[in-house]
Amino acid sequence: MSKVYAVIMAGGAGTRFWPASRSLRPKQLLPLAGAENETLLAATVRRLRPLVTEDRVVVVTGEHLAEATARAVPGVPTPQILREPAPRNTAPCIAWANAMIARLDPDAVVMVLPSDHFMTDEPGFQRVLAAAVASAERGRVTTVGIVPTRPETGYGYIEVGDALDGEARAVKRFVEKPDRARAESFVAAGPSSYLWNAGMFFFRVRDMAALLTRHLPAVASGVARMLEGGEALVHEVFPTLESISIDHGVMEKAEGLAVVPGDFGWNDVGSWQSAWELADRDPNGNALGPSDLVIDGKDNLVRSLGASKKTIALVGVNDLVVVETDDAILVIPRERAQDVRLVVDALKKAGKTALL
Amino acid sequence: MSKVYAVIMAGGAGTRFWPASRSLRPKQLLPLAGAENETLLAATVRRLRPLVTEDRVVVVTGEHLAEATARAVPGVPTPQILREPAPRNTAPCIAWANAMIARLDPDAVVMVLPSDHFMTDEPGFQRVLAAAVASAERGRVTTVGIVPTRPETGYGYIEVGDALDGEARAVKRFVEKPDRARAESFVAAGPSSYLWNAGMFFFRVRDMAALLTRHLPAVASGVARMLEGGEALVHEVFPTLESISIDHGVMEKAEGLAVVPGDFGWNDVGSWQSAWELADRDPNGNALGPSDLVIDGKDNLVRSLGASKKTIALVGVNDLVVVETDDAILVIPRERAQDVRLVVDALKKAGKTALL
Repeated sequence: MSKVYAVIMAGGAGTRFWPASRSLRPKQLLPLAGAENETLLAATVRRLRPLVTEDRVVVVTGEHLAEATARAVPGVPTPQILREPAPRNTAPCIAWANAMIARLDPDAVVMVLPSDHFMTDEPGFQRVLAAAVASAERGRVTTVGIVPTRPETGYGYIEVGDALDGEARAVKRFVEKPDRARAESFVAAGPSSYLWNAGMFFFRVRDMAALLTRHLPAVASGVARMLEGGEALVHEVFPTLESISIDHGVMEKAEGLAVVPGDFGWNDVGSWQSAWELADRDPNGNALGPSDLVIDGKDNLVRSLGASKKTIALVGVNDLVVVETDDAILVIPRERAQDVRLVVDALKKAGKTALL
Repeated sequence: MSKVYAVIMAGGAGTRFWPASRSLRPKQLLPLAGAENETLLAATVRRLRPLVTEDRVVVVTGEHLAEATARAVPGVPTPQILREPAPRNTAPCIAWANAMIARLDPDAVVMVLPSDHFMTDEPGFQRVLAAAVASAERGRVTTVGIVPTRPETGYGYIEVGDALDGEARAVKRFVEKPDRARAESFVAAGPSSYLWNAGMFFFRVRDMAALLTRHLPAVASGVARMLEGGEALVHEVFPTLESISIDHGVMEKAEGLAVVPGDFGWNDVGSWQSAWELADRDPNGNALGPSDLVIDGKDNLVRSLGASKKTIALVGVNDLVVVETDDAILVIPRERAQDVRLVVDALKKAGKTALL
């Protein structure tokens, strides 16, 4: 069996968890689900341990986030924390990590994973990872598709084709975010027809290198130059690479792709709404800290994240998100959680950079 | 003209402004209306200045509040801050202050005023005070009745009788808090028929002394003993005095009372709802601090009273009260503002005395 490496995509900025998330403390560096003090990034690395130990984990993040990222995953060797001098979407970043791993082990298999998702069924997730790695080892670029639980219009879908080896199926095609009616038809088609694209990819380094050379040759050669020249060339070359996603730049053009269906309580922790869904809740549906209280109210998310650990008391309100940090408080209905960006926009416009 | 003294009743505990109000920081010691940094007590004393300077102000408060009270009204001579060793309602406290003032000036006229109300029309209030003092000087125990603006069931009413001298009318009788139907009939009867009892009383010290001797003789003699014996006797005697209001103990039994109608934007600042009514509001009805923001919401009250002066951001919520202090945050609909007591009760039950 080949050595397996993990590339964790941890460059996200993320304003959807304001006031907890900030430009220097994005979502993946926050403990938004699961154990109280474990960041989403740390949980992502920990979950891989049966398959990939930390010495074979590569984390790609922004230069300004590198130190905080390193602190969040102290077991990952510092040279394996790649610092993007500028955000260029996922293709250049995967190309860089892939080339780096190829130099360590040209026979390696790589799994690319987001740093800010959550899975309630970790053993189930690990079984799917193993199946996807096995598929990649057979020379097929493989993705994991999430079995849909609702007609979600916010994700891309993967149309599933014929059965391949093991649990792998052929990818018929990638489908852009659908409208409501199409999303409903996808779910109605049954669990093995359309899957959510969760941004997880598995491949042999040589297969990805070949795909990049073919579909994004400038990115492939730029990355090769960078690796020869070291740090200085990263700063010179990386910002000039085409800003394009691995989906658009490679996956949608490649042939012979495989997908392994996954059903392990996946959640992309997309908003405070997701955080509420994933939180421990009392019989009234309230997710509270130990010193908070809700009187005559249900289904609220209450988070005191400041140093002072205030008591937050809610009376007679339902379905609210109330979050406190050291310098800000947010109150928003759960169903409007996406509109947190309106606050971030307003603060930006007002020049309140300290709050961003 | 007689010398006029003011007795300010500042013993209130007040849980209705939690988390701002606490046992050691009750409502009258908070800046809940008007100028940003002026406590209700300080505003009460300042408003009297054209009629009563601070050297003739007596403040009655609880022993545990004496220091904070003295700090709030630094111009009031310390011996005139009376410290009740135990709360005994208003009659013993007025009797004590009255006896004390009688020794300073047996010809004095006294006005008794709550410490925690607010008036938007200060000149109008001062004109009514002057009229009430003039009525008291003529030997009539006088009260000020507020012209009702709504069928309020939370206040007692005064039924108005014949015209007397100047603006004074006879008090026909005091009416207990009415039910809704009666309150509506009071308002329908017109502005000169029923007035709100706002707990303001005006009298010559000798007239009040005579009334106390007649209707509450034990209180009157107890107070006389206290004044002879000094501090030690206050501790011995005061807690033994009958706990009774001046309304029940004296006013409802006395004859020949006068009332001066007042219409000066009176507000008893009874809850966060009142605080919202009295606050400066933006065109959307939101009362905010300078760094707070509301997006797509109206008629909210937002108060950041902690040392850190956090930015409070509300999105898509209406009619909410959001208050932050150094150790707590409250979120409650304005119309349920009275239910703040439920939080206080719950904290009491949980033994969280630091938050009370």
